[in-house]
Amino acid sequence: MRAKVIVAVDAMGGDNAPNEVIKGSVRALANKNLHIKLFGPEDIIRSELANHDYDESRIEIIHAPEIVKMDESPTKAVRTKQNSSMIMAVNSVKEGFCDALVSAGNSGALLAGSTSIIGRIKGIERPVLGTPLPNAKDITFLLDSGANMDCKPSYLVQFAKMGSIYMEFVHKKPNPRVALINVGMEREKGNALTKEVYTLLENEKTINFIGNIEARSIPKGECDVAVCDAFVGNVILKYTEGMAGSLMGMIKEELMATTLSKIGAMMARGSFVKIKKRFDYAEIGGAPFLGLKRVVIKAHGSSDHRAIRSAIHQAYVFSSLRLCEEIEKYCLMNKSLDR
Amino acid sequence: MRAKVIVAVDAMGGDNAPNEVIKGSVRALANKNLHIKLFGPEDIIRSELANHDYDESRIEIIHAPEIVKMDESPTKAVRTKQNSSMIMAVNSVKEGFCDALVSAGNSGALLAGSTSIIGRIKGIERPVLGTPLPNAKDITFLLDSGANMDCKPSYLVQFAKMGSIYMEFVHKKPNPRVALINVGMEREKGNALTKEVYTLLENEKTINFIGNIEARSIPKGECDVAVCDAFVGNVILKYTEGMAGSLMGMIKEELMATTLSKIGAMMARGSFVKIKKRFDYAEIGGAPFLGLKRVVIKAHGSSDHRAIRSAIHQAYVFSSLRLCEEIEKYCLMNKSLDR
Repeated sequence: MRAKVIVAVDAMGGDNAPNEVIKGSVRALANKNLHIKLFGPEDIIRSELANHDYDESRIEIIHAPEIVKMDESPTKAVRTKQNSSMIMAVNSVKEGFCDALVSAGNSGALLAGSTSIIGRIKGIERPVLGTPLPNAKDITFLLDSGANMDCKPSYLVQFAKMGSIYMEFVHKKPNPRVALINVGMEREKGNALTKEVYTLLENEKTINFIGNIEARSIPKGECDVAVCDAFVGNVILKYTEGMAGSLMGMIKEELMATTLSKIGAMMARGSFVKIKKRFDYAEIGGAPFLGLKRVVIKAHGSSDHRAIRSAIHQAYVFSSLRLCEEIEKYCLMNKSLDR
Repeated sequence: MRAKVIVAVDAMGGDNAPNEVIKGSVRALANKNLHIKLFGPEDIIRSELANHDYDESRIEIIHAPEIVKMDESPTKAVRTKQNSSMIMAVNSVKEGFCDALVSAGNSGALLAGSTSIIGRIKGIERPVLGTPLPNAKDITFLLDSGANMDCKPSYLVQFAKMGSIYMEFVHKKPNPRVALINVGMEREKGNALTKEVYTLLENEKTINFIGNIEARSIPKGECDVAVCDAFVGNVILKYTEGMAGSLMGMIKEELMATTLSKIGAMMARGSFVKIKKRFDYAEIGGAPFLGLKRVVIKAHGSSDHRAIRSAIHQAYVFSSLRLCEEIEKYCLMNKSLDR
């Protein structure tokens, strides 16, 4: 692991910025190898930091007067908001002042900015957003979970490979099982895209392709890497959140209906806390954009300080493990990723 | 409502055929207006029927010696299995011997057979599979949930209209709220397909289009009709089943972990039974193929007798309400559905 990692944090990104972002950043400093540069309006960050005790030698404020709004057009934001906390943070990584970047801000702008400023690894057609999803046993890495809505078959093959490298290097899974998200297990199932991708993945010797998987099998932990286009990935991702939430809501409602079930629920309270924790995205933190030359982590827009701390920790780990360099090495070695 | 409805039942379709299909058919006869023709090998059906008491004047056996297998190629099945229970049942509806059809067999073959034999309503580009999904308040009708994996924008507009007619006539929802399943609420979100469909739906005066919906909002009951292509629809449908199952599994596991929570769970047992019932597909039954000239219901492959009974009841209701005729009437009135 690297001795020292400097993480650029977009202090103004996300629904709970800047207070939760700054609180999460301060907490992340529990890792002594970590240094943080906070990007945003200096006065706002300074007054927020005044609420915390922290090692001043390891947090630096970089004044960025502008803010990229959550609903702003990504390309316009990149073009016109050069002095925003997000774009200045991206530039600091590009210039080598920081090793990695964390933002809970506008996803599209973060992707567009990172791609155009930091740049893609040579051979990678499209950067991809990968999200670690909790399953019954461990983690399934879902990609693309948000970057490319309309995909060519070759993109998905690259996603599969980048996902494999991620699971191998970060989660220490040797020979990770890669599955294609589809509407059935049989190879002839699916739409035009999945049919073509199936054949390509089958012929890709560097990937441990185990075939199609139905979305419902993901929570069972039947694969380590699940690939799909970002439309399908995003539907699955958000549905997981929604279903978990509304099922727990229904359970709560039912349990509160009678005195007997109320008492029962109180006695079983510990169990419910544990289940809720399994679906708690704050415990996971963020999702990396893979295929870029540097580590860029997209934290959930509604991140609280725990999620931010967790995302910064991820940035530290990925940077220490030289995840981008591993993907680059693979691209150099493997002709199939070259264009 | 029609006085008498004759439903053709594919006695050999589904994982639990013929016993559960026949048991469900017998139970469905509780509705005195219902007559059933059971298609399949006569000896098998006869010996199965011997286990039940029923009104013999309202069940007829039509001998069909062949069976369409669950994994058989749909087009090949339609071409070569003219004497199968499924295809003979389809023909009986086409010829007018039966009013409606229920099968839990091979979905692709049922769709291909119904489309080529019974035929599409004039003006309808593609028949669509619509599935009623339970939500926090009532039902959301999801379509396409299985028929068309690769869709043109115009297909989705027709799905929206057929879904509206279904919710209005079957579920008595005046002016049903139609939403487009997408990865965000904003109109510019999504892939090439959804962007184009959004504009078309917006301009469709006969539809109460309320905009995009994220899959996670479906369980909250924020729309009555949710449209998407069958790839996305099938992912959502199967994921709902999978998530409900694995969450309930996790809860059970956690509750059994300590004596205290075990006792608590026993006290709250009634609540869990109620929740399970809400996600129990047997209570809902089947999914109609809309856009065909006659009522065709696809029952879930794993249907038990309750699901079959429920699917036959749906066939009775749709036929009585003249659902196909309503769609046909709309097509005649509305130029936008004409080709």
